[in-house]
Amino acid sequence: MSRTYETVSFISDFGYESEHVGVVKAVLRESAPHVVVIDLTHGISPFDVRGASLSLARAVPYLTEGIVIAAVDPGAGTQRRLVAVEVAGGAGIFIGPDNGLLAPGVALVGGAERAVILDKEEHHLVAPGSTFAARDVFAPIAAMLCNGIDLYEVGTQVDPAALLPGIVPIPRDENGTLECEVIWVDRFGNCQLNVSLDDLETAWNTKVDRVRVSFGENIRNFAISTSFADLGQGATGLVIDSSGLLCLAVDRSSAAKELSLGEGEQVSLQPGSTDLGVSTPISLRNK
Amino acid sequence: MSRTYETVSFISDFGYESEHVGVVKAVLRESAPHVVVIDLTHGISPFDVRGASLSLARAVPYLTEGIVIAAVDPGAGTQRRLVAVEVAGGAGIFIGPDNGLLAPGVALVGGAERAVILDKEEHHLVAPGSTFAARDVFAPIAAMLCNGIDLYEVGTQVDPAALLPGIVPIPRDENGTLECEVIWVDRFGNCQLNVSLDDLETAWNTKVDRVRVSFGENIRNFAISTSFADLGQGATGLVIDSSGLLCLAVDRSSAAKELSLGEGEQVSLQPGSTDLGVSTPISLRNK
Amino acid sequence: MSRTYETVSFISDFGYESEHVGVVKAVLRESAPHVVVIDLTHGISPFDVRGASLSLARAVPYLTEGIVIAAVDPGAGTQRRLVAVEVAGGAGIFIGPDNGLLAPGVALVGGAERAVILDKEEHHLVAPGSTFAARDVFAPIAAMLCNGIDLYEVGTQVDPAALLPGIVPIPRDENGTLECEVIWVDRFGNCQLNVSLDDLETAWNTKVDRVRVSFGENIRNFAISTSFADLGQGATGLVIDSSGLLCLAVDRSSAAKELSLGEGEQVSLQPGSTDLGVSTPISLRNK
Repeated sequence: MSRTYETVSFISDFGYESEHVGVVKAVLRESAPHVVVIDLTHGISPFDVRGASLSLARAVPYLTEGIVIAAVDPGAGTQRRLVAVEVAGGAGIFIGPDNGLLAPGVALVGGAERAVILDKEEHHLVAPGSTFAARDVFAPIAAMLCNGIDLYEVGTQVDPAALLPGIVPIPRDENGTLECEVIWVDRFGNCQLNVSLDDLETAWNTKVDRVRVSFGENIRNFAISTSFADLGQGATGLVIDSSGLLCLAVDRSSAAKELSLGEGEQVSLQPGSTDLGVSTPISLRNK
Repeated sequence: MSRTYETVSFISDFGYESEHVGVVKAVLRESAPHVVVIDLTHGISPFDVRGASLSLARAVPYLTEGIVIAAVDPGAGTQRRLVAVEVAGGAGIFIGPDNGLLAPGVALVGGAERAVILDKEEHHLVAPGSTFAARDVFAPIAAMLCNGIDLYEVGTQVDPAALLPGIVPIPRDENGTLECEVIWVDRFGNCQLNVSLDDLETAWNTKVDRVRVSFGENIRNFAISTSFADLGQGATGLVIDSSGLLCLAVDRSSAAKELSLGEGEQVSLQPGSTDLGVSTPISLRNK
Repeated sequence: MSRTYETVSFISDFGYESEHVGVVKAVLRESAPHVVVIDLTHGISPFDVRGASLSLARAVPYLTEGIVIAAVDPGAGTQRRLVAVEVAGGAGIFIGPDNGLLAPGVALVGGAERAVILDKEEHHLVAPGSTFAARDVFAPIAAMLCNGIDLYEVGTQVDPAALLPGIVPIPRDENGTLECEVIWVDRFGNCQLNVSLDDLETAWNTKVDRVRVSFGENIRNFAISTSFADLGQGATGLVIDSSGLLCLAVDRSSAAKELSLGEGEQVSLQPGSTDLGVSTPISLRNK
């Protein structure tokens, strides 16, 4: 007898304007009424597979045992594969399209141990159209798994190594300059970089409390803080955020707006100079 | 002893900025703690009764046994009637204003079998104002029904035929041209029409794989696809969506933006010509 | 043995675009799986402590026994205190930052009876950064309380009188003119004032059915209505809203837009004259 599950965590780019999220939950409720659904978010930008994969990866360390449904699927309705991936000795099963969305989260919990392609149509809902896999495939399959059906019964076994890897940008070290990227701008305008304080200290082989930050034609010198408020109201700096990554932030305001930065933009980090003071702008050119 | 219920599905135009949705759930939790609430959506545009009725109708085929609360009520606080409508031998009860909102969903599951006006104030919350029926009337009545109180005890019996019908636009056949309407623009910009492939094939008495689409001063010739991605990135076409209706779509982009179409706009469909190729724009006038 | 709890009500300014809300729920689910979470709203404007405190206060009369987590915390990560406050003989415990956010809600249910500072780090999650108190402090503490741990075990006892009070604007009576404020603009554009009909009748010592309303350079004469629709479509008036407060409203449209009013703006109320008719604009200057 397989393990049963009582929690489904659900992330998508369905938004909140339509009934899509509710319909997926209704299908789950019908077939696995004991299950509690935790919405991670449905506010992922449409088709933003990378953004969703990073959001899921940030959440994964906190998820309880159970199923994850991840539905950001620009290829909806085509022949791209839908998969279910088991991790951590069966503590979790990730369900989603095989487009890299699941990979960073799966990697964080030790990698895929067993995987199946969700190609057994007898387990799917009969639907008037084929564009809503979360409703017609993910939800009924999740319900089966929650009810104790084994992974290998809900799809066709596939080598986990054959799944599409995710794309998580890694900082490049160019002669001591770390070439980083804004990987997320949150609601408050904080710009998360793909680098931690540990990464900096390892790369530069020294303790770091100040960083020289270049982006576009701007060069600024920021102290590292453990809180937004410690920056001082209106001041900009680097904060160690709740994922342990450095983020460009302005206390009670939006760093994205004040620095004109967005997701995907490049930021270069070098050891900071204490001479320049904190947060002194020395732009080469004014805007 | 009446049937009890364990699920309440909830749709409204309350949005997500205020505590309104949470307060309704708090009232339910107080009086029927065993009940699970499924949010269909609360992102319906303010006062958009028709949009909500269509959203509810798309969801209804997937709902599990239970209560539906639908709260889009431009007449809040007036003497318009609040009703509860039983369907499918008691498998479901719809609660909402008698303004047409419930009608399409109710019709989909066989029509109203029993109905009451929610005029028994002794069952409502005593409130400091009369503008929040979902909190003061719908939630306590839903809790009573979930706890096994019979429909006829929560309100005053009314002939289901006396309820306000919903308005769902039906395509008109004008000498073989089907005059259709964009009934929904979803988050991705897909423009759902009020017509299915079956409707076209019945009207034109032939198999259809290509359609001539006229809107405003544009005439275009589209292939019918079963997925967005099959259109080819950036290309426009007609996709059979997850409700089985045809929708104007652009792969990974917004058809509403690219075609300048919005909800309520008219679109004429004629049998397509294969000569014109797929997605060739032959606008009479450039924008 | 302390009381256990089965419901956590949760309000924040986390928004719906990220996984923040879901992660807090995941932590709760892990440590107190029997608990149901009711989202009051997560759409509070970023850093809007006052707006959140008013939203919470509007919800409090309807909450069932249990824990409240309130997370709007511009001081996140600094040395500002995090607190848990018990009310109503243990029927509820409010958890949040000690920044005035909790005060109006707590006052509505009789005031704080016991309180603790959440400074026992052994009960918090070990986290890679210190900016996410809802995940690392509030959720694990809420889970402990739900599981029956006594308040005084989860933190350090503090005199409830030492907690920061909330700031709820009270109308000022200036020689019979009530100087009021727009304390909330809801999704529909209704402008809630910080005054009830009772307040007016007490201040003016007469029955009131018409009010002279001054704001900016406008003076208008409004009838008081118990519903939006009774105003007549497109007409402006004062409606007794679902909290029992007067709100400037336009039936099926936005009073905030039509009157150019926003949160925090001053509005003066005087006894109305019946001569001027309802809703007659007598602006001194046109816009």
